[in-house]
Amino acid sequence: MAPPPTPSLALSPRIRTSPFFDRTMAAGCSQFTIYNHMYMPTSYGDPEAEYWRLIEAVSLWDVSVQRQVELRGPDAGILAQTLTPRNLVNFGPDRGRYVPICDHDGGMLNDPVLLKLAEDRFWFSIADKDLRLWTEALAHERGLEVQVSEPDVSPLALQGPRADDVAAALFGDWVRELKFFSFRQTELEGIPLALARSGWSKQGGFELYLMDGSQGARLWDLIFEAGRPFGIGPGAPNSVERIESALLSYGADMDRSVNPFEVGMGKYVDVAQRADFIGKAALTRIAGQGPARRLVGLFIDGPALPHNLRRWIVLQDGRPAGYVSSAVHSIRLQRNIAMALMPTELAEPATGLSVLTEAGEHPANVTTLPFL
Amino acid sequence: MAPPPTPSLALSPRIRTSPFFDRTMAAGCSQFTIYNHMYMPTSYGDPEAEYWRLIEAVSLWDVSVQRQVELRGPDAGILAQTLTPRNLVNFGPDRGRYVPICDHDGGMLNDPVLLKLAEDRFWFSIADKDLRLWTEALAHERGLEVQVSEPDVSPLALQGPRADDVAAALFGDWVRELKFFSFRQTELEGIPLALARSGWSKQGGFELYLMDGSQGARLWDLIFEAGRPFGIGPGAPNSVERIESALLSYGADMDRSVNPFEVGMGKYVDVAQRADFIGKAALTRIAGQGPARRLVGLFIDGPALPHNLRRWIVLQDGRPAGYVSSAVHSIRLQRNIAMALMPTELAEPATGLSVLTEAGEHPANVTTLPFL
Repeated sequence: MAPPPTPSLALSPRIRTSPFFDRTMAAGCSQFTIYNHMYMPTSYGDPEAEYWRLIEAVSLWDVSVQRQVELRGPDAGILAQTLTPRNLVNFGPDRGRYVPICDHDGGMLNDPVLLKLAEDRFWFSIADKDLRLWTEALAHERGLEVQVSEPDVSPLALQGPRADDVAAALFGDWVRELKFFSFRQTELEGIPLALARSGWSKQGGFELYLMDGSQGARLWDLIFEAGRPFGIGPGAPNSVERIESALLSYGADMDRSVNPFEVGMGKYVDVAQRADFIGKAALTRIAGQGPARRLVGLFIDGPALPHNLRRWIVLQDGRPAGYVSSAVHSIRLQRNIAMALMPTELAEPATGLSVLTEAGEHPANVTTLPFL
Repeated sequence: MAPPPTPSLALSPRIRTSPFFDRTMAAGCSQFTIYNHMYMPTSYGDPEAEYWRLIEAVSLWDVSVQRQVELRGPDAGILAQTLTPRNLVNFGPDRGRYVPICDHDGGMLNDPVLLKLAEDRFWFSIADKDLRLWTEALAHERGLEVQVSEPDVSPLALQGPRADDVAAALFGDWVRELKFFSFRQTELEGIPLALARSGWSKQGGFELYLMDGSQGARLWDLIFEAGRPFGIGPGAPNSVERIESALLSYGADMDRSVNPFEVGMGKYVDVAQRADFIGKAALTRIAGQGPARRLVGLFIDGPALPHNLRRWIVLQDGRPAGYVSSAVHSIRLQRNIAMALMPTELAEPATGLSVLTEAGEHPANVTTLPFL
């Protein structure tokens, strides 16, 4: 089946450009999405080469759309713990944590990485949803002593097996010892940034949180120069690798109709903690009953399928049972792979499954995540 | 100067499709933006023809990205009034109002049309920002008896001088008497909808709020059929016509750094009212001092300019004085026109102004809004 047609993107002053925008255009960026009211590069015209660059070398991504919601002030810690079901006791500064943010019914509002810069300063590095509004309304209504803002912070991701070499060339060998989700506030030729071992791939690497938007082009150039011996090239969050690695995408694999227990984030929910976080009553109830659905892996038979544009219904013996949230043709496995939200009783190997795609119905089999 | 390059748009399951998506693709939609986490058509490949269709005939727009934040329950009216500085006393059911939504500092959070469906039921038809989060957090924290949700409602806009004829052919001659911003809850061949005299152009027309997403294709087809004798064709919110008419675009002409007095929305702010709406203290202070800036019209000399991708700095005698929020080459005026936020003392005809575009510096002159 032919891939879906790719329309063009309207450029408009309504949408914000990133500090790296001109550099990404000069590097040949040919495709964008919009994320947190900003343009975000998604391809430089050769998806297969971009995939292998991430798997085998090192790739530089403009992910400044990961906007930070900053909490700053004496009550910043209280507000952070109110926002997430994850227990933040024993969460030291210069550390990050992947945290669910839930509504009062336990539905997923966001899945940011939370960075603790100091006892009174936190960043939620958010997915595509205006979490600042939620956070600010709460802070105001509760009379907390905390400033909520979107600071001038723009992450770049350096991902792939050679990312350590590039970061070491830029910052020194200490970066090799940096633990996953740890970060250090530092600078590069006077450019202020936080260097974190993190990123939305399973190929290893760093995120550089640029703290001065006027220095975007300079930072981009410095990284490219240092990366040349290691085969660096431009890239973007990779929709094939992330599904192979079972990394979740907010808006696709979860939204407010999904709770954290259903998508494997139950380990980040502590309903026994003392703090009264938002959604605690609902999540306590769900934890007691067990989730009704679970995110599973699916192999889908048939010819190479394009990305799903909408949810695809999963049938068991012809009756709707669940849905595919994200599907792609795996480059390394050379098979159609998908993540699907299925009733818990069908999450174990079940028979008689099929998926209704725009290209017809195809048999499918449940498998464990990640695929690779 | 060449227009900026138009990259392609990444299609992803993260972004929602509208109930009219298949029909807009079949009608030849070739360009989209993303708005409220949905694809929104912006062009069908012939911008000039789409412009004249709106000015001279009638155009059908998929604007289902105007999502509704519904307030429902005994405290819905209290919450609505808390959210907006506009006085909602004497606001009858089946009426709409253009309302600013402000943060605690008086900054613009949104500029929706508010529809009152009943004493206990309201819709905020929102611009591109997750106002539901702000609204829900408030309702919860204040313990109000109100449900906040995003209902299954998807507007279509029917705009242009022949829109009355098309709507009359569909619904009957009563539509000709419908006053601006009034609406009626009705149906079309069993399809539930609200028909409002409104829309984001100054060419007249209606918005049809479809209340059953499964009926999108049927509604689209019925309108097209009825519109054929009147020259109907597909279209989209028109960036040329809307600047000629000085209609504001949230994200471009205003955001949280701008207050309603600065963009001509002061007439919708009632700081003397009894209700304690959000931002009242800040807006009372600004109302007393008068706004520091004002949105004005600019004619910009030089060859036909493309849309501004970013804000363009306005200089007076070489020094930065303000910025262009939206610029376009007017088709009817055959001149470059723009809206600019300028210091109040320069809002009256000032000399020595110029605009720094990507294509160089061009002389400019202040004029009154709208242009047409």
